[in-house]
Amino acid sequence: MSKWIEEELEPGLRVSYGLKKILSSTQSKFQTVDVVDLDCFGRSLMIDGLIQSCQVDEFVYHESLVHPALLAHPCPKTVYIGGGGEGSTAREVLRHNSVEKCVMVDIDGDVVRFCKEALPENAEAFADPRLELVIDDAKAVLEKGGSYDVIIMDLDDPLEGGPCYQLYTKEFYAMIKSKLNPGGVFVTQSGQAGMTRHHLVWSPVHATLKAVFPAVRGYNQAIYSFMDEWGWNIAFLDAGMGALLTEEQVDERIASRIKGELKFLDGESYRGLFCLSKGHRQTLAAETKVLSTVDGTFAVMHSQGLCVAEAPKIS
Amino acid sequence: MSKWIEEELEPGLRVSYGLKKILSSTQSKFQTVDVVDLDCFGRSLMIDGLIQSCQVDEFVYHESLVHPALLAHPCPKTVYIGGGGEGSTAREVLRHNSVEKCVMVDIDGDVVRFCKEALPENAEAFADPRLELVIDDAKAVLEKGGSYDVIIMDLDDPLEGGPCYQLYTKEFYAMIKSKLNPGGVFVTQSGQAGMTRHHLVWSPVHATLKAVFPAVRGYNQAIYSFMDEWGWNIAFLDAGMGALLTEEQVDERIASRIKGELKFLDGESYRGLFCLSKGHRQTLAAETKVLSTVDGTFAVMHSQGLCVAEAPKIS
Amino acid sequence: MSKWIEEELEPGLRVSYGLKKILSSTQSKFQTVDVVDLDCFGRSLMIDGLIQSCQVDEFVYHESLVHPALLAHPCPKTVYIGGGGEGSTAREVLRHNSVEKCVMVDIDGDVVRFCKEALPENAEAFADPRLELVIDDAKAVLEKGGSYDVIIMDLDDPLEGGPCYQLYTKEFYAMIKSKLNPGGVFVTQSGQAGMTRHHLVWSPVHATLKAVFPAVRGYNQAIYSFMDEWGWNIAFLDAGMGALLTEEQVDERIASRIKGELKFLDGESYRGLFCLSKGHRQTLAAETKVLSTVDGTFAVMHSQGLCVAEAPKIS
Amino acid sequence: MSKWIEEELEPGLRVSYGLKKILSSTQSKFQTVDVVDLDCFGRSLMIDGLIQSCQVDEFVYHESLVHPALLAHPCPKTVYIGGGGEGSTAREVLRHNSVEKCVMVDIDGDVVRFCKEALPENAEAFADPRLELVIDDAKAVLEKGGSYDVIIMDLDDPLEGGPCYQLYTKEFYAMIKSKLNPGGVFVTQSGQAGMTRHHLVWSPVHATLKAVFPAVRGYNQAIYSFMDEWGWNIAFLDAGMGALLTEEQVDERIASRIKGELKFLDGESYRGLFCLSKGHRQTLAAETKVLSTVDGTFAVMHSQGLCVAEAPKIS
Repeated sequence: MSKWIEEELEPGLRVSYGLKKILSSTQSKFQTVDVVDLDCFGRSLMIDGLIQSCQVDEFVYHESLVHPALLAHPCPKTVYIGGGGEGSTAREVLRHNSVEKCVMVDIDGDVVRFCKEALPENAEAFADPRLELVIDDAKAVLEKGGSYDVIIMDLDDPLEGGPCYQLYTKEFYAMIKSKLNPGGVFVTQSGQAGMTRHHLVWSPVHATLKAVFPAVRGYNQAIYSFMDEWGWNIAFLDAGMGALLTEEQVDERIASRIKGELKFLDGESYRGLFCLSKGHRQTLAAETKVLSTVDGTFAVMHSQGLCVAEAPKIS
Repeated sequence: MSKWIEEELEPGLRVSYGLKKILSSTQSKFQTVDVVDLDCFGRSLMIDGLIQSCQVDEFVYHESLVHPALLAHPCPKTVYIGGGGEGSTAREVLRHNSVEKCVMVDIDGDVVRFCKEALPENAEAFADPRLELVIDDAKAVLEKGGSYDVIIMDLDDPLEGGPCYQLYTKEFYAMIKSKLNPGGVFVTQSGQAGMTRHHLVWSPVHATLKAVFPAVRGYNQAIYSFMDEWGWNIAFLDAGMGALLTEEQVDERIASRIKGELKFLDGESYRGLFCLSKGHRQTLAAETKVLSTVDGTFAVMHSQGLCVAEAPKIS
Repeated sequence: MSKWIEEELEPGLRVSYGLKKILSSTQSKFQTVDVVDLDCFGRSLMIDGLIQSCQVDEFVYHESLVHPALLAHPCPKTVYIGGGGEGSTAREVLRHNSVEKCVMVDIDGDVVRFCKEALPENAEAFADPRLELVIDDAKAVLEKGGSYDVIIMDLDDPLEGGPCYQLYTKEFYAMIKSKLNPGGVFVTQSGQAGMTRHHLVWSPVHATLKAVFPAVRGYNQAIYSFMDEWGWNIAFLDAGMGALLTEEQVDERIASRIKGELKFLDGESYRGLFCLSKGHRQTLAAETKVLSTVDGTFAVMHSQGLCVAEAPKIS
Repeated sequence: MSKWIEEELEPGLRVSYGLKKILSSTQSKFQTVDVVDLDCFGRSLMIDGLIQSCQVDEFVYHESLVHPALLAHPCPKTVYIGGGGEGSTAREVLRHNSVEKCVMVDIDGDVVRFCKEALPENAEAFADPRLELVIDDAKAVLEKGGSYDVIIMDLDDPLEGGPCYQLYTKEFYAMIKSKLNPGGVFVTQSGQAGMTRHHLVWSPVHATLKAVFPAVRGYNQAIYSFMDEWGWNIAFLDAGMGALLTEEQVDERIASRIKGELKFLDGESYRGLFCLSKGHRQTLAAETKVLSTVDGTFAVMHSQGLCVAEAPKIS
């Protein structure tokens, strides 16, 4: 083993991945984009040196991001995806029979281009006539018009000075809310969500959504290739929709609405996503940080300032 | 950052921990034992270069190991711990008011000695008169006599040629079964249990226990400092006891039986432990490998022969 | 910095090179061949994960390998190079005005092909009509016929089981000797030659050549990208030619015979190559290991079995 | 191998040393001081995470630092060492029969204390009644008074903001000059001196000394555990003394003046120290940077701003 990719998860914690092959490697207008084959995780997309998605378990991330939101909606016809240039989020959305239009807006044409070439599992999605692919700013395109049953934000972590900084704020979420059709559902990836780092992005995003939406749920799931639990937050325009589905409801809706077999999600996995540990629920309950462009409050992530002393106090 | 400890999780996947301080480092009769302070995980115990337990989240592992078994029992009075020299497993056991005697048998006196010195959070447990600490072979001591309400195996992974190889086999489990009092419960740590590696130890141990006990449940939980989900298997002498407790039952039993506040476990966390993903349940259902000293079938772990191609097929 | 190439220099000593770009990467019939751009060393050739040659200082290695031998000869017209597929050795040979024919025999056509494409500094040499490039076994081609004024072996280290194992033995050197014209000179790269590892290959090769040739000199030079001093041995068919040239002679011969400016070698550098430290000379004087296919004595190198305890005793 | 010490030699070039044992590790008033046992280099002293000296080849560094200066002097009786807290420089000085007094001034009492305990090879030197050990600032003590036959600066590299920054400037060297007895010699370690990095400290220090002293020589030597060639500069109060000794003179003076056997240096090694490569001599000849506190010109070293593009141009 002589070639490695190294990622610093946090100060004093590094992971190294044996590198089999670099399929493409570019400095795009926005970021460094690498498509590589890793010994341990298979074909993988890396942006700015951080793993975004790996063949070996990308389905866990993408099924967790997409299906809870779409299954919660009685009949999702129009879906907006911010980011997701890799194509896997669109692939999961388009498995839903009810979906008539899926607009996917990613700012980086290079990501889309490389993933189209390198990820055969997403070829069908990219070719689906219901998909409308736009290379542009996810915020700008959404502001211009249109309304949706489900909106999904599949963005980079809010790194200080990074491109997605403003897309995790109450101002942005208020705009999102205005673009949802009645009964609409919003879901966003929300960063690391394990025992020691879920307070960095996941819980502030949760509190921020609660400042805007009448019903919000945080959920998380271990993802091996991310080396931690990952977090999402789902928000409902209609407070009454915030109740969890039963395991049976989930299994029925998957059977009747989704084309093909899911690999990760079913009723029991769904229940597991929403079972938060005592410590996680304490952090959510205590969280007061509302992210705001106006107030200048932002979340920070990835190698930016966590030490053990700052880990969430779990009584 | 100039000092690091490096662990190979599997071929092509290495993790490096910034090393603040080595508190003790010895080649004991059985293994290399290091107590260290890590930048990212705080005070940590390493055996043969592999992390066993870290200050920052050892409670997740130990609460998950101990409490589901003791809470499932109507009134656990006698508990046997194989391994657990660090003291944290005993600490959690002794929080149960009903426990009158806890026998802990670890083969390595050095582990016990160093942890006694370095881990103040376990001092009270080590001093508890209900604890009977024996430095000896966990199998030999159990065979000699005594019977227990709950037996807990907190052993190293079954590494090829390692000391714990035989303590994950149907022959050993049959002996365990014979030492349980009526209504008795057995639980064992069962190695990595994330999406790509749960078939190495966790599911064979599950199948092996099912060959011996009338009711068995596998469960898992993400543990950040282990860089994966971790797995356990719990087995019941009495098939009727295999049903999960409700979240309410768990919360009630914790309140009435356990001294102090748990940090990780409550009813909802408990429910989450037992919600297995679709892929995990498929693996358990399909598992045919029964580990046996007689048949020469063993589980293997940790850098021993997993590649992506061998990862469990998840349909 | 997220991509790295890692090389184990010896057990417990690893070097990692920041990797900018992989230009080509192939498993050839014989070995893994990578042409890469490294942050610290520029464009570099790696074979089986070990650095062979780097833009930043390959001239030190190649000038040291080629010119002492050619300058020692009164008028070198025919030169044989075993290995050297990268082209830099031929480039230095062809700078000598007197050279009429240079036969270069490398077993790996992929190495030659990739280097031709990636190393513009060797383009002129590859296009020189005096160069006869043969893709074949360096030993077999030499045995078939022809005789030379200077023979140069620019081979891989004699790794156990590697392809070049037999090309550092007294049997091979006896054959070489028979292919030298009167007054002929032979030189071979001879592995690491710093204070702690020069006894592994460099001094056994020296002793082996002394068993075959009437005059032999070992020399060494620090090469930064090899992270050590490197060693060569030069042997003379005619004992009288074994005397060192004076610094003035070297400067004069360079001026009159060599096209262009050398970057590393001149009279004083030449003198430095042959000034061995006290410890090095002690090792050479005490060396009794003669490498032989017949006797089954071989040199070993690179991560194969050196520990501090085995380092040469320097009184 | 699970514990490592990692050193960044320059951006994109890291070395990792297998760590056997930490003997002591302290944050002194001035720096981080570690005495460790390394797999590859034996017992080693590290300051601020950078290797200072290793059992396996410290003698190469210390013999090269001390003996050329003392052998150049007709009869050195008084010697001043700035730095050198480890004791090895003093050890080499005190082997000279002529030396009557050796004043060693190191600012960090912890370095001295730990090395006294951990390095038995220097015990005799520390106990020698001719040694006067002062824990204080090397500049301040020298300014206060006294004059010497030989002055040796064995300091840290001039890191920006580091403690030794000002001890490589013409102002400091002018002071040194005023403290030398007639016929006095000054020598200073001068940082990395291999093909790509000798222009950072070694050649500016050379030019700076030339601005102060009538005769100056730079010299260098590969040191394996430093992973490069290392450089020194020697300066003479009396221009006539700047001529090199012949190899015979060196061997004679070593025999008559020095107690015990040297391991590295003799006449031929000495000659090798002063044979600079063509590239090195070109850099020295072209160097115009004179370091000065007053002018604010300083040298920088170690991971501070070298890239390939800045490497010295070697024609």
